[in-house]
Amino acid sequence: MSKLTISKRGFQMPPSPIRKLVPFAEASKKKGIKVYHLNIGQPDIETPRYVLDAVRHSDFKILEYSHSAGNESYRRKLVAYYKKNGITINHNEIIITTGGSEAILFGFMACLDAGDEVIIPEPYYANYNGFAVSAGINVVPITSHIENGFALPPIEDFEKVITGRTKAIVVCNPNNPTGYLYSKDELEVLKQIVLKHHLYLFADEAYREFCYEDKHFSAMQLTGCDDNIVLMDTISKRYSCCGARIGALITRNKELYNTVMKFAQARLSPPGFGQIAGEAAIDLPDNYFDVTKAAYKARRDLIVKRLNAMPGVYCPNPGGAFYAMAKLPIDDSDKFCQWLLEEFSYCNQTVMLAPATGFYGSADYGKDEVRIAYVLNLDSLNAAMDCLEKALAAYPGAK
Amino acid sequence: MSKLTISKRGFQMPPSPIRKLVPFAEASKKKGIKVYHLNIGQPDIETPRYVLDAVRHSDFKILEYSHSAGNESYRRKLVAYYKKNGITINHNEIIITTGGSEAILFGFMACLDAGDEVIIPEPYYANYNGFAVSAGINVVPITSHIENGFALPPIEDFEKVITGRTKAIVVCNPNNPTGYLYSKDELEVLKQIVLKHHLYLFADEAYREFCYEDKHFSAMQLTGCDDNIVLMDTISKRYSCCGARIGALITRNKELYNTVMKFAQARLSPPGFGQIAGEAAIDLPDNYFDVTKAAYKARRDLIVKRLNAMPGVYCPNPGGAFYAMAKLPIDDSDKFCQWLLEEFSYCNQTVMLAPATGFYGSADYGKDEVRIAYVLNLDSLNAAMDCLEKALAAYPGAK
Repeated sequence: MSKLTISKRGFQMPPSPIRKLVPFAEASKKKGIKVYHLNIGQPDIETPRYVLDAVRHSDFKILEYSHSAGNESYRRKLVAYYKKNGITINHNEIIITTGGSEAILFGFMACLDAGDEVIIPEPYYANYNGFAVSAGINVVPITSHIENGFALPPIEDFEKVITGRTKAIVVCNPNNPTGYLYSKDELEVLKQIVLKHHLYLFADEAYREFCYEDKHFSAMQLTGCDDNIVLMDTISKRYSCCGARIGALITRNKELYNTVMKFAQARLSPPGFGQIAGEAAIDLPDNYFDVTKAAYKARRDLIVKRLNAMPGVYCPNPGGAFYAMAKLPIDDSDKFCQWLLEEFSYCNQTVMLAPATGFYGSADYGKDEVRIAYVLNLDSLNAAMDCLEKALAAYPGAK
Repeated sequence: MSKLTISKRGFQMPPSPIRKLVPFAEASKKKGIKVYHLNIGQPDIETPRYVLDAVRHSDFKILEYSHSAGNESYRRKLVAYYKKNGITINHNEIIITTGGSEAILFGFMACLDAGDEVIIPEPYYANYNGFAVSAGINVVPITSHIENGFALPPIEDFEKVITGRTKAIVVCNPNNPTGYLYSKDELEVLKQIVLKHHLYLFADEAYREFCYEDKHFSAMQLTGCDDNIVLMDTISKRYSCCGARIGALITRNKELYNTVMKFAQARLSPPGFGQIAGEAAIDLPDNYFDVTKAAYKARRDLIVKRLNAMPGVYCPNPGGAFYAMAKLPIDDSDKFCQWLLEEFSYCNQTVMLAPATGFYGSADYGKDEVRIAYVLNLDSLNAAMDCLEKALAAYPGAK
C-alpha cells in the first residue's frame, strides 16, 4: 500500500439522508426555535409498561450469550404471534436478529454475492442502500408514482430490469416511506415474478400492525413459493421500542435458514435484555394495537387533510405505516427542508421533514416530494402543518 | 437465474467450530453424563448485581433509538474508564457497537475491500473468519507456536506475506485462544510494521482486565501512529455480561471514524438496555476486578499445573484472558473432542473442549492441540482435569 486508505465501500457508504439535516435543526433550536420532528420514524407512543417491566423484573445472575438464533422460549412464543396474524411457521424457521437492520443485512449476505442485483420499488427505505453497499450488491430501482399512491409498478417494469445478476426483490409492506399497503393481488404478482425468475422475495413487514382500512396480507401467506420468501421483521415500531434492537429473519427455506445461522453464529447472539422485552410483548392483550392504531389513524387523517388543503400540495392517503409522501410546489426538497430549519420560523416554530430525494435510487427523483412521519400528537401535527403552510407561501424557491 | 441459490459467501461462511460439537454434548447429557463445558468463553462469574440493577431500575417511558454512536453520556463515561487504563481518547473517538463482533465487522468493512488481505497470527479467534467472509476479505495467517507460548511471530514472518492487497493486521491481546499477553516491545514491533507498510492495526482487547503477572499495554498507548490504530472492545468478558451485546470501536483516525459512523447509522443504534448496563458498570469500584482476576488466576494455575502433570501434555502458562492451549498426545483433536463426548466417561462425567484446528487458518494445524476455557470453579476444573487425564490414558488414537 502506498498510503493508509479507507475502503472503497466505506467511501461509497451513504450517510443517513434522514440525519444529515440534524446540524441545521440543532442550530435552529439554539436560536430558541421549536422544531417539530416529522423527519424520523421515532414514535412518541410510549413503550408498553408491561414490556419494560418484564426487563425490570427479570431475575437472573449471569447475562449470558443466548442461542445464536435467539432464546428458544421467545421463538416458540413468536410462533403464536405469527399464527394470530395468519402466518404459519415453526420456531426453527425463526432467527432473532439485532433489529430489522440485521435481518436485512443477513438476507442480503446469504442470498446475494458482490455484484448481484436486488430490485426495489422506489422510493424505498434509505438504509437498504447502506446494507447493499456492505454486501457489495447493486440496488436496481423501479419507480412507483405518487399519482396512483405508489402502487406496485407493473410487472413489465420488473421484467425490463431483470438480468442474470438479479437475485431478489425487496418489498416493504406497508411501505416506508410511502405508507402504501400492498394488496393480496399485488403480492400474487410478485410471487409470479419470483417463481418465474428464481428470485428471493424479501418482505420487510416492520409496520404490519399499522394498516388503517384494509387487512395486511403477508408475503408469508403466499403459497407454493416457500423457498423464495424471506420475512424481515422487527419489534421496533410494533411496540414502540426501537432501542431494544430486536428483529427476526424468518424463512421456510432450510438451506437458506442454515446459511443465515452461520452469519448469526459468527456474531454470537442477539441482545439479551431486548429478547426479554420482545418475549413479554407477545403477552400484551389483543386490543393493545387498537389504541395505537386509532392514534396513528387520527394523525394520518389530520395530516392528509391539512396537506391536501394547501395550494399546490398533493398527498395520497397512505393505507398503512406512519409515513406520508407529499408533493410540494417547490424547486428542490433538500433546499426546502434545509431552508425550513435555517431561515424560516412561524410563531417561533418550524418543522423538520425528510427530503424525498434520499428515498429514490434514481438521481434527481423526489425533488418536489417530502416524507412526513406522523409520529407526534395531534396538537403538534396541527402546529407543524401551520408552519408548513406558511413556509410554502414564503419559500423563495416556490414553483 | 437458472435456479434459486444461496450466495457463494453464504456457502463459504464457516460454521462455528466451537459449537459444532454441541449435538454430541447434548447426546451425552441425554445419557445422564455430566459434561464440563470448557469449550466456550461463557464465564460462570456473576454479572455484577449493580450492573443488572441499573437496568432494572431504569426509568423511562419510551425505549427510543439512541445516537448511532451510542449514548453520549455513556461515551463520556467511557473516556474516564479508558483514562484509568492509560488510554487517552475523547468521546467523539468512540462508537458503541453491538458487541465486539460488530466492531470487528465495521473495522473490516470500513478499511478493507473485497479481495484485500488481513494478516492474523494463528491460532486466532475463529469468528474473525466469519467477519472476513462477510466482508469478502482474505485472512492471511502467520503461525505462532506453542513452544514459545505463542509469542508474536518474528517481523520477517509478517514481511514475507505482505502484498499490495494487505491492509491490516489483527492482534488480540491478551489472546483468545492462546492466553498470550503481548508485551510493549511486541506492540512496538507491530507499530513499525504498520507504519512502514501503511497498514491498520486492529487491536482486539476484549480481555484487557485479565492479565495475571504483567500489566496490559494497549495498542492505543503506542505513539506516532494514531491513524493506524483501531481498538475493538467489548464489555462481554470484562463484566461477565456477554448477553448485553455492547462493544466499541475506537480510533483517533477522523476519516475512518466518519466512515465507520456511516455503517453505524445504517443500523440505526446499538442496544438500549445494554448501554444502560455498560454505563453503570463504569461506576463499579476499582477493586471490582481484583476478585474476578484472583478467581481466574487460581483457575489458570490449577489447570496449567494439572495439564503439565499429565504424560505427554504441554501447556504454556497463559499471561492473560481465560484460555489455555494444550498440546496433547493425540492423533486428531477433532476426533478426540468428539470421542470425549460420544464414547468416554469417567465417574459418569466427561469434558467438552474446543479442538484447536478451528483456530488455525492453515490447513491441518492444531491437530494435537485443544483450547481450554477456564470458566468454571476450581472443583469443576479439577473434576474436568480428572476426566481428561483418564481419557488420554484410554483414547485409542493416543500417540
